Amino acid sequence: MITLYDIPSKLPQGCWSPNTRKARYCLKFKGIPYEVTWVEYPDIEPTCKKIGAPPTTKRPDGSPLYTFPVIHDSSTGAVIADSVAIAEYLEITYPDTPKLFPPGTKALQIAFDAAHLVTLNVIYRFIRPGALRILNPPSEAYFREQKFGPNDSYLPPEGEEWREKWEKVKESFDLVNSWCEKSDGEFMMGNTISFADLAIGCRLYWIRELLGEQGAEWQDLKGWHGGRWSTLLQNVEKYA
Amino acid sequence: MITLYDIPSKLPQGCWSPNTRKARYCLKFKGIPYEVTWVEYPDIEPTCKKIGAPPTTKRPDGSPLYTFPVIHDSSTGAVIADSVAIAEYLEITYPDTPKLFPPGTKALQIAFDAAHLVTLNVIYRFIRPGALRILNPPSEAYFREQKFGPNDSYLPPEGEEWREKWEKVKESFDLVNSWCEKSDGEFMMGNTISFADLAIGCRLYWIRELLGEQGAEWQDLKGWHGGRWSTLLQNVEKYA
Repeated sequence: MITLYDIPSKLPQGCWSPNTRKARYCLKFKGIPYEVTWVEYPDIEPTCKKIGAPPTTKRPDGSPLYTFPVIHDSSTGAVIADSVAIAEYLEITYPDTPKLFPPGTKALQIAFDAAHLVTLNVIYRFIRPGALRILNPPSEAYFREQKFGPNDSYLPPEGEEWREKWEKVKESFDLVNSWCEKSDGEFMMGNTISFADLAIGCRLYWIRELLGEQGAEWQDLKGWHGGRWSTLLQNVEKYA
Repeated sequence: MITLYDIPSKLPQGCWSPNTRKARYCLKFKGIPYEVTWVEYPDIEPTCKKIGAPPTTKRPDGSPLYTFPVIHDSSTGAVIADSVAIAEYLEITYPDTPKLFPPGTKALQIAFDAAHLVTLNVIYRFIRPGALRILNPPSEAYFREQKFGPNDSYLPPEGEEWREKWEKVKESFDLVNSWCEKSDGEFMMGNTISFADLAIGCRLYWIRELLGEQGAEWQDLKGWHGGRWSTLLQNVEKYA
Protein backbone atom coordinates (compact mmCIF):
# COMPACT_ATOMS: atom_id res chain seq x y z
CA MET A 1 0.00 0.00 0.00
CA ILE A 2 1.21 3.50 -0.83
CA THR A 3 0.88 6.33 1.67
CA LEU A 4 0.72 9.81 0.19
CA TYR A 5 1.65 12.68 2.48
CA ASP A 6 -0.51 15.68 1.69
CA ILE A 7 -1.37 19.10 3.14
CA PRO A 8 -4.97 19.67 4.29
CA SER A 9 -7.07 22.79 3.64
CA LYS A 10 -10.64 24.03 3.87
CA LEU A 11 -11.30 22.95 0.26
CA PRO A 12 -13.88 20.16 -0.12
CA GLN A 13 -11.25 17.65 -1.26
CA GLY A 14 -8.72 18.77 1.35
CA CYS A 15 -5.81 18.71 -1.09
CA TRP A 16 -4.87 22.20 -2.27
CA SER A 17 -1.21 21.96 -3.33
CA PRO A 18 -0.74 21.52 -7.09
CA ASN A 19 2.29 19.32 -6.47
CA THR A 20 0.62 16.87 -4.09
CA ARG A 21 -2.35 16.88 -6.45
CA LYS A 22 -0.03 15.92 -9.31
CA ALA A 23 1.08 12.85 -7.32
CA ARG A 24 -2.60 11.99 -6.71
CA TYR A 25 -3.39 12.26 -10.42
CA CYS A 26 -0.41 10.01 -11.23
CA LEU A 27 -1.46 7.35 -8.72
CA LYS A 28 -5.09 7.35 -9.85
CA PHE A 29 -4.10 7.47 -13.54
CA LYS A 30 -2.09 4.31 -12.96
CA GLY A 31 -4.82 2.71 -10.86
CA ILE A 32 -2.51 2.29 -7.87
CA PRO A 33 -4.39 2.38 -4.55
CA TYR A 34 -3.14 4.77 -1.87
CA GLU A 35 -4.10 6.24 1.45
CA VAL A 36 -3.46 9.80 2.59
CA THR A 37 -1.73 11.09 5.70
CA TRP A 38 -2.61 14.74 6.27
CA VAL A 39 0.12 17.00 7.65
CA GLU A 40 -0.08 20.76 8.29
CA TYR A 41 2.80 22.93 7.01
CA PRO A 42 4.72 23.30 10.29
CA ASP A 43 4.86 19.50 10.62
CA ILE A 44 6.17 18.77 7.11
CA GLU A 45 9.87 18.95 8.02
CA PRO A 46 9.62 16.83 11.20
CA THR A 47 7.48 14.29 9.32
CA CYS A 48 9.98 14.05 6.46
CA LYS A 49 12.88 13.58 8.87
CA LYS A 50 10.96 10.91 10.76
CA ILE A 51 10.11 8.84 7.66
CA GLY A 52 13.43 9.44 5.90
CA ALA A 53 12.27 11.70 3.07
CA PRO A 54 15.07 13.93 1.75
CA PRO A 55 14.74 17.71 1.32
CA THR A 56 13.83 18.61 -2.27
CA THR A 57 15.25 22.11 -2.47
CA LYS A 58 16.89 24.92 -0.50
CA ARG A 59 15.61 28.03 1.20
CA PRO A 60 17.09 31.36 0.05
CA ASP A 61 19.47 31.16 3.04
CA GLY A 62 20.79 27.80 1.79
CA SER A 63 19.17 25.62 4.46
CA PRO A 64 17.37 22.45 3.28
CA LEU A 65 13.66 22.71 2.49
CA TYR A 66 11.42 19.68 2.93
CA THR A 67 8.33 19.63 0.78
CA PHE A 68 5.32 17.47 -0.06
CA PRO A 69 4.31 15.35 -1.86
CA VAL A 70 6.14 12.42 -0.33
CA ILE A 71 5.08 8.82 -0.77
CA HIS A 72 5.97 5.76 1.25
CA ASP A 73 5.54 2.49 -0.60
CA SER A 74 5.21 -0.31 1.95
CA SER A 75 5.69 -2.98 -0.71
CA THR A 76 9.23 -1.80 -1.52
CA GLY A 77 10.08 0.33 1.52
CA ALA A 78 10.84 3.28 -0.74
CA VAL A 79 10.26 6.85 0.45
CA ILE A 80 10.15 9.28 -2.45
CA ALA A 81 9.86 13.09 -2.33
CA ASP A 82 9.00 15.47 -5.21
CA SER A 83 6.14 15.04 -7.68
CA VAL A 84 8.39 14.37 -10.69
CA ALA A 85 10.50 11.82 -8.80
CA ILE A 86 7.27 10.13 -7.65
CA ALA A 87 6.01 9.91 -11.24
CA GLU A 88 9.33 8.40 -12.33
CA TYR A 89 9.30 5.94 -9.41
CA LEU A 90 5.76 4.78 -10.14
CA GLU A 91 6.52 4.37 -13.84
CA ILE A 92 9.51 2.12 -13.12
CA THR A 93 8.10 0.21 -10.15
CA TYR A 94 4.68 -0.48 -11.66
CA PRO A 95 5.50 -1.12 -15.33
CA ASP A 96 2.19 -2.83 -16.12
CA THR A 97 0.11 0.28 -15.39
CA PRO A 98 -0.83 3.02 -17.90
CA LYS A 99 2.19 5.05 -19.03
CA LEU A 100 2.63 8.59 -17.74
CA PHE A 101 5.57 8.98 -20.14
CA PRO A 102 4.92 7.28 -23.49
CA PRO A 103 8.22 5.82 -24.81
CA GLY A 104 10.91 8.41 -25.44
CA THR A 105 8.93 11.36 -24.06
CA LYS A 106 10.01 11.54 -20.41
CA ALA A 107 12.55 14.34 -20.83
CA LEU A 108 10.16 16.38 -23.00
CA GLN A 109 7.30 15.89 -20.53
CA ILE A 110 9.39 16.96 -17.55
CA ALA A 111 10.65 19.98 -19.48
CA PHE A 112 7.03 20.91 -20.22
CA ASP A 113 6.13 20.60 -16.54
CA ALA A 114 8.89 23.05 -15.59
CA ALA A 115 8.24 25.38 -18.53
CA HIS A 116 4.49 25.84 -18.07
CA LEU A 117 5.01 26.41 -14.36
CA VAL A 118 7.59 29.15 -14.81
CA THR A 119 5.55 30.74 -17.59
CA LEU A 120 2.26 30.85 -15.68
CA ASN A 121 3.93 32.02 -12.47
CA VAL A 122 2.91 35.63 -13.13
CA ILE A 123 -0.53 34.66 -11.80
CA TYR A 124 0.93 34.13 -8.34
CA ARG A 125 0.10 37.62 -7.06
CA PHE A 126 -3.55 37.04 -7.87
CA ILE A 127 -3.85 33.70 -6.17
CA ARG A 128 -1.74 33.89 -3.02
CA PRO A 129 -4.38 35.78 -1.00
CA GLY A 130 -6.61 32.80 -1.75
CA ALA A 131 -4.07 30.50 -0.11
CA LEU A 132 -4.52 32.32 3.18
CA ARG A 133 -8.29 32.00 2.83
CA ILE A 134 -8.32 28.24 2.36
CA LEU A 135 -5.50 27.03 4.64
CA ASN A 136 -6.19 25.78 8.16
CA PRO A 137 -4.87 28.05 10.96
CA PRO A 138 -1.51 26.30 11.64
CA SER A 139 -0.64 26.19 7.92
CA GLU A 140 -1.95 29.70 7.31
CA ALA A 141 0.35 31.20 9.95
CA TYR A 142 3.33 29.28 8.54
CA PHE A 143 2.51 30.16 4.95
CA ARG A 144 2.08 33.85 5.79
CA GLU A 145 5.47 33.93 7.47
CA GLN A 146 7.30 31.97 4.76
CA LYS A 147 5.74 33.25 1.57
CA PHE A 148 5.01 36.92 2.20
CA GLY A 149 7.66 39.56 2.77
CA PRO A 150 7.27 41.88 5.79
CA ASN A 151 6.10 44.75 3.59
CA ASP A 152 3.78 42.74 1.36
CA SER A 153 0.14 43.54 1.39
CA TYR A 154 -1.77 40.28 1.17
CA LEU A 155 -4.09 41.83 -1.33
CA PRO A 156 -4.23 41.21 -5.05
CA PRO A 157 -3.65 44.12 -7.46
CA GLU A 158 -6.46 46.61 -7.99
CA GLY A 159 -7.61 49.14 -10.63
CA GLU A 160 -5.04 50.04 -13.27
CA GLU A 161 -2.46 47.69 -11.74
CA TRP A 162 -5.01 44.86 -11.91
CA ARG A 163 -5.52 45.45 -15.62
CA GLU A 164 -1.81 45.64 -16.35
CA LYS A 165 -0.87 42.56 -14.34
CA TRP A 166 -3.87 40.56 -15.55
CA GLU A 167 -2.84 41.31 -19.14
CA LYS A 168 0.52 39.71 -18.32
CA VAL A 169 -1.31 36.65 -17.01
CA LYS A 170 -3.26 36.49 -20.27
CA GLU A 171 -0.01 36.70 -22.24
CA SER A 172 1.47 33.83 -20.23
CA PHE A 173 -1.55 31.67 -21.05
CA ASP A 174 -1.28 32.76 -24.70
CA LEU A 175 2.25 31.38 -24.74
CA VAL A 176 1.37 28.04 -23.15
CA ASN A 177 -1.63 27.83 -25.48
CA SER A 178 0.67 28.33 -28.48
CA TRP A 179 2.40 25.10 -27.44
CA CYS A 180 -0.75 23.15 -26.58
CA GLU A 181 -2.48 24.00 -29.83
CA LYS A 182 0.26 22.27 -31.81
CA SER A 183 -1.15 18.96 -30.64
CA ASP A 184 -3.46 17.10 -33.00
CA GLY A 185 -5.89 16.29 -30.18
CA GLU A 186 -7.27 17.80 -27.00
CA PHE A 187 -4.30 16.68 -24.88
CA MET A 188 -0.60 17.44 -25.27
CA MET A 189 0.05 14.14 -27.02
CA GLY A 190 -3.08 13.99 -29.13
CA ASN A 191 -6.06 12.15 -27.71
CA THR A 192 -4.19 10.36 -24.92
CA ILE A 193 -3.65 11.86 -21.50
CA SER A 194 -0.03 11.86 -20.35
CA PHE A 195 2.02 13.41 -17.54
CA ALA A 196 2.06 16.87 -19.17
CA ASP A 197 -1.76 17.10 -19.00
CA LEU A 198 -1.83 16.02 -15.37
CA ALA A 199 0.89 18.57 -14.58
CA ILE A 200 -1.01 21.48 -16.08
CA GLY A 201 -4.35 20.14 -14.81
CA CYS A 202 -3.27 20.21 -11.16
CA ARG A 203 -2.09 23.76 -11.59
CA LEU A 204 -5.40 24.82 -13.17
CA TYR A 205 -7.29 23.35 -10.22
CA TRP A 206 -5.10 25.31 -7.84
CA ILE A 207 -5.61 28.50 -9.85
CA ARG A 208 -9.41 28.07 -9.99
CA GLU A 209 -9.76 27.30 -6.29
CA LEU A 210 -7.51 30.14 -5.17
CA LEU A 211 -9.01 32.72 -7.51
CA GLY A 212 -12.46 31.52 -6.51
CA GLU A 213 -14.62 29.92 -9.19
CA GLN A 214 -17.07 32.83 -9.17
CA GLY A 215 -14.41 35.55 -9.15
CA ALA A 216 -13.85 37.90 -12.10
CA GLU A 217 -10.44 36.39 -12.90
CA TRP A 218 -11.53 32.77 -13.26
CA GLN A 219 -14.65 33.81 -15.12
CA ASP A 220 -12.39 35.63 -17.58
CA LEU A 221 -9.73 32.92 -17.78
CA LYS A 222 -12.12 30.05 -18.41
CA GLY A 223 -13.23 31.71 -21.66
CA TRP A 224 -9.69 32.09 -23.05
CA HIS A 225 -8.47 29.95 -25.96
CA GLY A 226 -11.82 28.39 -26.72
CA GLY A 227 -12.31 27.22 -23.15
CA ARG A 228 -9.15 25.11 -23.28
CA TRP A 229 -8.29 25.53 -19.60
CA SER A 230 -11.64 24.71 -18.03
CA THR A 231 -12.09 21.77 -20.44
CA LEU A 232 -8.65 20.40 -19.61
CA LEU A 233 -9.32 20.78 -15.90
CA GLN A 234 -12.60 18.90 -16.30
CA ASN A 235 -10.90 16.12 -18.26
CA VAL A 236 -8.18 15.46 -15.71
CA GLU A 237 -10.32 15.93 -12.61
CA LYS A 238 -11.43 12.32 -12.82
CA TYR A 239 -7.95 11.46 -11.48
CA ALA A 240 -8.45 13.53 -8.31
CA MET B 1 13.61 22.99 -55.16
CA ILE B 2 13.47 24.85 -51.86
CA THR B 3 15.10 28.24 -51.43
CA LEU B 4 16.15 29.14 -47.90
CA TYR B 5 16.58 32.81 -47.13
CA ASP B 6 19.46 33.27 -44.72
CA ILE B 7 21.61 36.06 -43.27
CA PRO B 8 25.35 36.05 -44.14
CA SER B 9 28.21 36.71 -41.73
CA LYS B 10 31.98 36.42 -41.52
CA LEU B 11 31.69 32.90 -40.05
CA PRO B 12 33.11 30.12 -42.27
CA GLN B 13 29.65 28.68 -43.00
CA GLY B 14 28.07 32.10 -43.46
CA CYS B 15 24.97 31.24 -41.47
CA TRP B 16 25.05 32.72 -37.96
CA SER B 17 21.38 32.99 -36.89
CA PRO B 18 20.22 30.10 -34.69
CA ASN B 19 16.78 30.27 -36.27
CA THR B 20 17.90 30.05 -39.89
CA ARG B 21 20.31 27.32 -38.78
CA LYS B 22 17.37 25.41 -37.29
CA ALA B 23 15.66 25.47 -40.68
CA ARG B 24 18.89 24.21 -42.29
CA TYR B 25 19.15 21.36 -39.80
CA CYS B 26 15.51 20.41 -40.47
CA LEU B 27 16.01 20.38 -44.25
CA LYS B 28 19.22 18.34 -44.07
CA PHE B 29 17.75 15.99 -41.42
CA LYS B 30 14.93 15.25 -43.84
CA GLY B 31 17.27 14.97 -46.79
CA ILE B 32 15.45 17.70 -48.72
CA PRO B 33 17.75 19.59 -51.11
CA TYR B 34 17.78 23.37 -50.89
CA GLU B 35 19.66 26.39 -52.11
CA VAL B 36 20.42 29.52 -50.12
CA THR B 37 19.70 33.15 -50.92
CA TRP B 38 21.83 35.42 -48.74
CA VAL B 39 20.24 38.68 -47.55
CA GLU B 40 21.77 41.27 -45.20
CA TYR B 41 19.59 42.53 -42.31
CA PRO B 42 18.46 45.84 -43.88
CA ASP B 43 17.10 43.91 -46.88
CA ILE B 44 15.10 41.31 -44.93
CA GLU B 45 11.86 43.30 -44.83
CA PRO B 46 11.89 44.33 -48.53
CA THR B 47 12.74 40.75 -49.51
CA CYS B 48 9.88 39.33 -47.43
CA LYS B 49 7.43 41.80 -48.92
CA LYS B 50 8.63 40.99 -52.42
CA ILE B 51 8.25 37.21 -52.06
CA GLY B 52 5.08 37.34 -49.96
CA ALA B 53 6.46 36.19 -46.61
CA PRO B 54 4.38 37.44 -43.66
CA PRO B 55 5.85 39.21 -40.62
CA THR B 56 6.43 36.77 -37.75
CA THR B 57 6.24 39.14 -34.80
CA LYS B 58 5.95 42.78 -33.76
CA ARG B 59 8.41 45.42 -32.73
CA PRO B 60 7.96 47.02 -29.29
CA ASP B 61 6.14 49.90 -31.05
CA GLY B 62 3.61 47.45 -32.51
CA SER B 63 4.84 47.61 -36.11
CA PRO B 64 5.28 44.31 -37.97
CA LEU B 65 8.69 42.66 -37.83
CA TYR B 66 9.86 40.48 -40.72
CA THR B 67 12.38 37.82 -39.84
CA PHE B 68 14.34 34.95 -41.37
CA PRO B 69 14.30 32.02 -41.91
CA VAL B 70 11.87 32.06 -44.81
CA ILE B 71 11.62 29.28 -47.35
CA HIS B 72 10.11 29.28 -50.81
CA ASP B 73 9.14 25.85 -52.08
CA SER B 74 8.96 26.00 -55.88
CA SER B 75 7.19 22.61 -56.04
CA THR B 76 4.15 23.88 -54.10
CA GLY B 77 4.55 27.66 -54.39
CA ALA B 78 4.45 27.95 -50.60
CA VAL B 79 6.33 30.74 -48.82
CA ILE B 80 6.79 29.99 -45.12
CA ALA B 81 8.33 32.20 -42.44
CA ASP B 82 9.45 31.17 -38.92
CA SER B 83 11.59 28.14 -38.06
CA VAL B 84 8.82 26.26 -36.25
CA ALA B 85 6.32 26.85 -39.05
CA ILE B 86 8.94 25.66 -41.55
CA ALA B 87 9.49 22.45 -39.56
CA GLU B 88 5.73 21.84 -39.47
CA TYR B 89 5.41 22.57 -43.20
CA LEU B 90 8.22 20.19 -44.13
CA GLU B 91 6.80 17.46 -41.89
CA ILE B 92 3.39 17.66 -43.58
CA THR B 93 4.53 18.29 -47.15
CA TYR B 94 7.26 15.63 -47.20
CA PRO B 95 5.72 12.79 -45.16
CA ASP B 96 8.13 10.12 -46.42
CA THR B 97 11.19 11.81 -44.91
CA PRO B 98 12.59 11.25 -41.37
CA LYS B 99 10.26 12.59 -38.67
CA LEU B 100 11.20 15.76 -36.83
CA PHE B 101 8.23 15.15 -34.52
CA PRO B 102 7.76 11.46 -33.70
CA PRO B 103 4.00 10.71 -33.42
CA GLY B 104 2.24 12.64 -30.65
CA THR B 105 5.26 14.74 -29.67
CA LYS B 106 4.87 17.90 -31.76
CA ALA B 107 3.36 20.07 -29.00
CA LEU B 108 5.91 18.88 -26.43
CA GLN B 109 8.79 19.48 -28.85
CA ILE B 110 7.66 22.99 -29.69
CA ALA B 111 7.18 23.75 -25.99
CA PHE B 112 10.74 22.57 -25.38
CA ASP B 113 12.04 24.81 -28.14
CA ALA B 114 10.42 27.85 -26.52
CA ALA B 115 11.34 26.82 -22.97
CA HIS B 116 15.05 26.20 -23.51
CA LEU B 117 15.33 29.45 -25.44
CA VAL B 118 13.75 31.56 -22.70
CA THR B 119 15.76 29.78 -20.01
CA LEU B 120 19.15 30.18 -21.70
CA ASN B 121 18.48 33.78 -22.66
CA VAL B 122 20.54 35.07 -19.71
CA ILE B 123 23.62 34.37 -21.83
CA TYR B 124 22.62 37.10 -24.26
CA ARG B 125 24.77 39.83 -22.63
CA PHE B 126 27.83 37.66 -23.08
CA ILE B 127 27.29 36.87 -26.71
CA ARG B 128 25.88 40.00 -28.30
CA PRO B 129 29.27 41.73 -28.62
CA GLY B 130 30.25 38.70 -30.70
CA ALA B 131 27.38 39.43 -33.10
CA LEU B 132 28.93 42.77 -33.99
CA ARG B 133 32.27 41.07 -34.57
CA ILE B 134 30.98 38.52 -37.05
CA LEU B 135 28.31 40.45 -39.02
CA ASN B 136 29.09 42.08 -42.34
CA PRO B 137 29.05 45.91 -42.28
CA PRO B 138 25.44 46.49 -43.51
CA SER B 139 24.02 43.99 -41.03
CA GLU B 140 26.29 45.14 -38.24
CA ALA B 141 25.06 48.73 -38.48
CA TYR B 142 21.44 47.56 -38.53
CA PHE B 143 21.93 45.14 -35.64
CA ARG B 144 23.68 47.78 -33.53
CA GLU B 145 20.82 50.19 -34.06
CA GLN B 146 18.05 47.65 -33.43
CA LYS B 147 19.42 45.50 -30.65
CA PHE B 148 21.44 47.89 -28.48
CA GLY B 149 20.00 50.75 -26.49
CA PRO B 150 21.58 54.21 -26.88
CA ASN B 151 23.29 53.88 -23.49
CA ASP B 152 24.44 50.28 -23.85
CA SER B 153 28.08 49.54 -23.85
CA TYR B 154 28.71 46.79 -26.36
CA LEU B 155 30.98 45.09 -23.91
CA PRO B 156 30.28 41.93 -21.94
CA PRO B 157 30.32 42.07 -18.11
CA GLU B 158 33.70 42.18 -16.34
CA GLY B 159 35.17 41.34 -12.94
CA GLU B 160 32.66 40.73 -10.13
CA GLU B 161 29.73 41.37 -12.48
CA TRP B 162 31.13 38.77 -14.86
CA ARG B 163 31.23 36.18 -12.07
CA GLU B 164 27.70 36.97 -10.89
CA LYS B 165 26.15 36.96 -14.35
CA TRP B 166 28.08 33.92 -15.52
CA GLU B 167 26.83 32.04 -12.44
CA LYS B 168 23.28 32.81 -13.66
CA VAL B 169 24.19 31.39 -17.06
CA LYS B 170 25.45 28.25 -15.34
CA GLU B 171 22.17 27.97 -13.41
CA SER B 172 20.16 28.29 -16.63
CA PHE B 173 22.14 25.42 -18.16
CA ASP B 174 21.69 23.44 -14.93
CA LEU B 175 17.94 23.76 -15.39
CA VAL B 176 17.91 22.69 -19.04
CA ASN B 177 20.28 19.86 -18.13
CA SER B 178 17.84 18.67 -15.45
CA TRP B 179 15.33 18.13 -18.28
CA CYS B 180 17.76 16.59 -20.77
CA GLU B 181 19.17 14.11 -18.27
CA LYS B 182 15.72 12.54 -17.85
CA SER B 183 16.14 11.01 -21.27
CA ASP B 184 17.32 7.41 -21.47
CA GLY B 185 19.74 8.24 -24.27
CA GLU B 186 22.00 11.02 -25.45
CA PHE B 187 19.20 12.90 -27.22
CA MET B 188 15.93 14.29 -25.84
CA MET B 189 13.99 11.26 -27.04
CA GLY B 190 16.55 8.59 -26.22
CA ASN B 191 18.94 7.58 -28.99
CA THR B 192 17.04 9.20 -31.86
CA ILE B 193 17.55 12.82 -32.89
CA SER B 194 14.35 14.86 -33.10
CA PHE B 195 13.39 18.52 -33.46
CA ALA B 196 14.23 19.34 -29.82
CA ASP B 197 17.88 18.35 -30.34
CA LEU B 198 18.16 20.37 -33.53
CA ALA B 199 16.58 23.36 -31.74
CA ILE B 200 19.06 23.34 -28.88
CA GLY B 201 21.92 22.39 -31.20
CA CYS B 202 21.52 25.47 -33.38
CA ARG B 203 21.52 27.63 -30.27
CA LEU B 204 24.71 25.99 -28.98
CA TYR B 205 26.43 26.68 -32.29
CA TRP B 206 25.41 30.33 -32.05
CA ILE B 207 26.63 30.53 -28.46
CA ARG B 208 29.98 28.93 -29.26
CA GLU B 209 30.66 31.09 -32.30
CA LEU B 210 29.67 34.32 -30.58
CA LEU B 211 31.56 33.61 -27.37
CA GLY B 212 34.53 32.49 -29.44
CA GLU B 213 35.60 28.88 -29.21
CA GLN B 214 38.86 29.78 -27.43
CA GLY B 215 37.26 32.27 -25.02
CA ALA B 216 37.06 31.65 -21.26
CA GLU B 217 33.26 31.28 -21.33
CA TRP B 218 33.01 28.54 -23.95
CA GLN B 219 36.01 26.75 -22.43
CA ASP B 220 34.10 26.73 -19.13
CA LEU B 221 30.70 25.87 -20.62
CA LYS B 222 31.90 22.95 -22.70
CA GLY B 223 32.95 21.14 -19.52
CA TRP B 224 29.56 21.50 -17.80
CA HIS B 225 27.28 18.50 -17.29
CA GLY B 226 29.78 15.92 -18.44
CA GLY B 227 30.41 17.71 -21.72
CA ARG B 228 26.73 17.43 -22.73
CA TRP B 229 26.64 20.67 -24.70
CA SER B 230 29.75 20.25 -26.83
CA THR B 231 28.83 16.61 -27.51
CA LEU B 232 25.29 17.56 -28.54
CA LEU B 233 26.62 20.31 -30.80
CA GLN B 234 29.02 17.85 -32.44
CA ASN B 235 26.21 15.32 -32.95
CA VAL B 236 23.84 17.72 -34.70
CA GLU B 237 26.47 19.59 -36.71
CA LYS B 238 26.27 16.95 -39.42
CA TYR B 239 22.98 18.61 -40.39
CA ALA B 240 24.63 21.99 -41.01
